[in-house]
Amino acid sequence: MKAEIIAVGTELLLGQIVNSNAQYLSQELAALGIDVYFQTVVGDNTNRLAQAVEAATSRADLLIFTGGLGPTQDDLTKDSLASVLGRSLHIDPEAMENVDRFFKDRGIPMTENNRRQALSIDGATPLPNETGLAVGNAIADQGKFYIVLPGPPKEMKPMFEKQAKPWILEHVLSGAMPLFSKMLKFAGIGESALETKLLDLIKEQTDPTVAPYAKEGEVTIRISTKAPNEQEAMEKLDVMEREIASRLPNHLYANIDVPIEKTIVDLMAERGLTLSAAESCTGGLLMEMITAVPGSSAVFTGGIVCYSNAMKEKLLNVPHELLEGENAPGAVSAETAIVLAEEVRQITDTDFGLSITGVAGPSHSERKPVGLVYIALSRRDGETSVYELNLKGSREIIRLRTVKTILYHLWKEIKA
Amino acid sequence: MKAEIIAVGTELLLGQIVNSNAQYLSQELAALGIDVYFQTVVGDNTNRLAQAVEAATSRADLLIFTGGLGPTQDDLTKDSLASVLGRSLHIDPEAMENVDRFFKDRGIPMTENNRRQALSIDGATPLPNETGLAVGNAIADQGKFYIVLPGPPKEMKPMFEKQAKPWILEHVLSGAMPLFSKMLKFAGIGESALETKLLDLIKEQTDPTVAPYAKEGEVTIRISTKAPNEQEAMEKLDVMEREIASRLPNHLYANIDVPIEKTIVDLMAERGLTLSAAESCTGGLLMEMITAVPGSSAVFTGGIVCYSNAMKEKLLNVPHELLEGENAPGAVSAETAIVLAEEVRQITDTDFGLSITGVAGPSHSERKPVGLVYIALSRRDGETSVYELNLKGSREIIRLRTVKTILYHLWKEIKA
Repeated sequence: MKAEIIAVGTELLLGQIVNSNAQYLSQELAALGIDVYFQTVVGDNTNRLAQAVEAATSRADLLIFTGGLGPTQDDLTKDSLASVLGRSLHIDPEAMENVDRFFKDRGIPMTENNRRQALSIDGATPLPNETGLAVGNAIADQGKFYIVLPGPPKEMKPMFEKQAKPWILEHVLSGAMPLFSKMLKFAGIGESALETKLLDLIKEQTDPTVAPYAKEGEVTIRISTKAPNEQEAMEKLDVMEREIASRLPNHLYANIDVPIEKTIVDLMAERGLTLSAAESCTGGLLMEMITAVPGSSAVFTGGIVCYSNAMKEKLLNVPHELLEGENAPGAVSAETAIVLAEEVRQITDTDFGLSITGVAGPSHSERKPVGLVYIALSRRDGETSVYELNLKGSREIIRLRTVKTILYHLWKEIKA
Repeated sequence: MKAEIIAVGTELLLGQIVNSNAQYLSQELAALGIDVYFQTVVGDNTNRLAQAVEAATSRADLLIFTGGLGPTQDDLTKDSLASVLGRSLHIDPEAMENVDRFFKDRGIPMTENNRRQALSIDGATPLPNETGLAVGNAIADQGKFYIVLPGPPKEMKPMFEKQAKPWILEHVLSGAMPLFSKMLKFAGIGESALETKLLDLIKEQTDPTVAPYAKEGEVTIRISTKAPNEQEAMEKLDVMEREIASRLPNHLYANIDVPIEKTIVDLMAERGLTLSAAESCTGGLLMEMITAVPGSSAVFTGGIVCYSNAMKEKLLNVPHELLEGENAPGAVSAETAIVLAEEVRQITDTDFGLSITGVAGPSHSERKPVGLVYIALSRRDGETSVYELNLKGSREIIRLRTVKTILYHLWKEIKA
């Protein structure tokens, strides 16, 4: 089964937006065991769109289109596909009702061009749009399969997940054993170190297969297997998960695709633990990431961004002698990190107090190098741990790696 | 002049990475006045790569390749292109020296396959790689132009900027008048409201041309003109900038591509003004964005994330009666926002104190709806302003829009 993803939209060709839809659909198709051979981007132009459809039909079995379903004369995807397939378009009554309701609810008169969003290709299965107006389509024609999805990700993703995927499983993959996957998430380890530990599993293409994915500050492994049903798949996946976990016990933090801060918030909420933070060079990034997790208010009460030395003294009681003077350790030091963590924990009366102080760059400070960062974790009735980090990269990357590292150490402390 | 961008790499087809190179190159080509008609992604496979090259050659004048220049047998871009053009490959001596030096400097033995990174197509101009090992290529062949760039953005971008762009200007656009552009940045106004104000300029395709770009929370206008030299271009661009500025005086915050927080930090530093913040529902996002600007320490001293009511009382002296009780306004109220802004300003002794308190969702709080947010700005020896926002969208979008809105109001206060 070969697939091609065709994104339609002049805004992509002008570089106004990045083609994140192609990435999302490629991941989803990979997870279904479908190979994507080409991704194409084409503008809102009838001839070139028809050219792209013909090229893709000649080389792929499944064509997935995104974009070009809107109300304007520039939105041509369904028209072009219908024309290549020698079919006509009609107004889908349910989709039309959805468009009418939208304008009625808002008390806005519907302009005639909005009827275009309810157009469906003759003989296609209409794919309802739960988060927008333009209806999608799924068509089987002469042994090829065509799926038409809207461009905005907030409409495309739910339509793919709820409408197109079940249609693919039923019509395109019918008879084939479905593919089941699990995402394993790792912290505190780089992609290459992790690959080294799992090299035999990755290279031998065992069943389940093991494939690593990396992005800044985190590593993910997808394990996949084909099986007649979910239960049999999960049995195989669980065995592989245990094998991997036994090799990396201090790094595997979740077996679903969540960031580590979500795992931390859930674990701490479950155990009734609370958290606070004092941030210098990261300027609030740690607290921002924790509070981005819905429900974080059960765990996180507050904290302090102490960017200047004066604020470290005033808000967090760091002794002046520690910060300034010829032989003082300075703001970027293990000593200061420890005081910050302990003070913020005491001030907020929380179980854990985290602190970060360092040089994020681009220029150095206190004659200390860019990338030198101290992080500390203070716990109620426990020892305070402090770590020195020597990071490379831009200001943004140093800040992000610092936060990911302290989250990793916090997770290690609470998981036990 | 029609261009096509061809990204080579199986990791793109698996959705492991997003094709940000295509976006970058599309923007750069648009700025040069070159139309991109197609973007294609193809895997590390000789046949399909040759197929993509042939299709692109038949429909475009300029083909830009990214990726597939690495040391392994999977890196096939130059081999495939050479084969389609009927040319051979040779080792480029300067590129080979660069590879040799890299391994020598690190004291690592060079494996033979790394020689592949110094391969150049016969007759091509080698494009040196200043941030990596694989050499790029630029070729003119039978009226068509081919440029081969590495895949990693940190190698691709400098090579495009310093090597490929000058080559395009000299060989592809020679004789044509170069295009000059300026980016105008707007805050506090949505894309459609801004377009309405500039509709005549956008629609009439005046010289300079006016093109809007939008992303979450900010709107950008690119104005472009062709001229024999920079001075003549800038004169025309300046006239258009003044016309646009006169229509949107309270929204145009910069004429270079910077976020509003950068403009704020620069303006405040210039005027010797300082800033602090108290954040509830945004959890540190405002402070994180401000401190992401290099040099922000001249302006920003610190602040407090007061996520819980207890912390609002303890760290920012919000009276208990304001927060709790049957007829209390509650944490999410104009009254609380005002106290937070004034208190954080006084505690940190800064010229401006900003505050944010609201319901970011997904669940409501204090029986107030998701998206209700109060923001306040306190200034030394001045009145405190407070704004009620009613925002829609996910938790992430509500938090981002809140921060962009308060930055907009701060900019308006200091720009005068």
